[in-house]
Amino acid sequence: MKAIGVFDSGVGGLTVLKALRRAMPGRDFLYLGDTARVPYGRKPAAMVREFAREITGFLADRGAEAVVVACNTATAVALPDLKREFSLPIWGVIDPGVEAAARATRSGHVGVIGTKGTIRSEAYQKRLEARGMQVWAQACPLFVYLVEEDLADSPEAELLARHYLDNRPPIDTLILGCTHYPVLAPMLSRVLGPDIQLVESASVAAESVRGMFGDEPAPGPGRITHFVTGDPIAYEHTAAVIGGVDGEIIALPVSELRSAPVEK
Amino acid sequence: MKAIGVFDSGVGGLTVLKALRRAMPGRDFLYLGDTARVPYGRKPAAMVREFAREITGFLADRGAEAVVVACNTATAVALPDLKREFSLPIWGVIDPGVEAAARATRSGHVGVIGTKGTIRSEAYQKRLEARGMQVWAQACPLFVYLVEEDLADSPEAELLARHYLDNRPPIDTLILGCTHYPVLAPMLSRVLGPDIQLVESASVAAESVRGMFGDEPAPGPGRITHFVTGDPIAYEHTAAVIGGVDGEIIALPVSELRSAPVEK
Repeated sequence: MKAIGVFDSGVGGLTVLKALRRAMPGRDFLYLGDTARVPYGRKPAAMVREFAREITGFLADRGAEAVVVACNTATAVALPDLKREFSLPIWGVIDPGVEAAARATRSGHVGVIGTKGTIRSEAYQKRLEARGMQVWAQACPLFVYLVEEDLADSPEAELLARHYLDNRPPIDTLILGCTHYPVLAPMLSRVLGPDIQLVESASVAAESVRGMFGDEPAPGPGRITHFVTGDPIAYEHTAAVIGGVDGEIIALPVSELRSAPVEK
Repeated sequence: MKAIGVFDSGVGGLTVLKALRRAMPGRDFLYLGDTARVPYGRKPAAMVREFAREITGFLADRGAEAVVVACNTATAVALPDLKREFSLPIWGVIDPGVEAAARATRSGHVGVIGTKGTIRSEAYQKRLEARGMQVWAQACPLFVYLVEEDLADSPEAELLARHYLDNRPPIDTLILGCTHYPVLAPMLSRVLGPDIQLVESASVAAESVRGMFGDEPAPGPGRITHFVTGDPIAYEHTAAVIGGVDGEIIALPVSELRSAPVEK
């Protein structure tokens, strides 16, 4: 049984990996955290697109039969190109986030928060509007660091959340449009109050991938392999704020990623 | 003529490199940005100490005749060990920051801001108190990201600065105890008003290194080589917020750093 590839700029995509494993516990997964080049959020779209192509090529080459782009910024700027260039099934996290919002909203007034790159791409806004929703979008460039600095539930976090969110129009649903943000959910719920539902991509994405592949019977839990372009020790330390890593961690210098044969 | 080695967890030390080059324009410099393992600020002291040892060994091996630890976190937790283990002259950025504060203060009431690691180490506090100053110390873990996200002069920056600094006692001098922070100086000056002087390590550190070596006559400007453990393209992009990079950029996988022979 071949593996499912999952990638993100760093540790954020581990929230998606967790949902995928919950849906398909017998599957093998290859996770790639591009920690040598994190963060993607402020980088030019063309640069992130190139990174995403290299990584998808690497995962395909290592035997992934499908790839989940577990990073909103990369999904926003690279998914159409990846789908055109590679023959294997590729999922992003934006359509699942849109689907989750469509299921949750009653008023049709939806907000979305994410990195500068994600919000600037308007990928969420266009899809939500195409489905008849009214959209408010806000870039929250410091939210990723609240998570990575283990400040998800700190006074700074509340201060920044109020700064970014207090000017919102009436919405009943907020899409957490960055795979780091689920870690902020308890703090955001407190700041936003009980009338706004927080939705994220992970569980709908996992449902969609499982819908295609199903969970194949396996004697035990699937094997998880983490490739990291930065340092494995630093990766494990940062990943602790997102619930930690299980499985093998393999160092993968960016230079090897660049020279990986790209299957088109 | 041998080079002077300079290192930091990432791009922050470029503020120190700039001061060193201004003081010694004919010198060659080897700069190492450990971007595969950035940030150091929240990592355990023993981990940062190990990183600093590997890097100092690498720079010595590449011909550095002296090393400047251009990172406050690494200086705070690793400098004594490095001095003990290596025979070449090694400077940190904390003693120069203390010296700059001692020259600037009139009241003897001094503040210091830095990463969690730097503040927790109490390296500044002990040295300032030993010189008879009254010290207020505050960790500002999100300030690094304001710089790296190009938000040094944003509403978020002011909000966080007020959060971290509004509870200060009366001080007349504030040490910017992280090599990223000089980029925040215009915003901090505005928040703190004209009665508080901001001081940093770079120029005093450069003065001290120059005092030992002098600027040797050279036909033209010295050569700058940047080694980065993360991705060179990502490094160049992030470095733009600190005034950019000149010189060659060489990718250096962490695995090579680990196998570098350590000169003791």
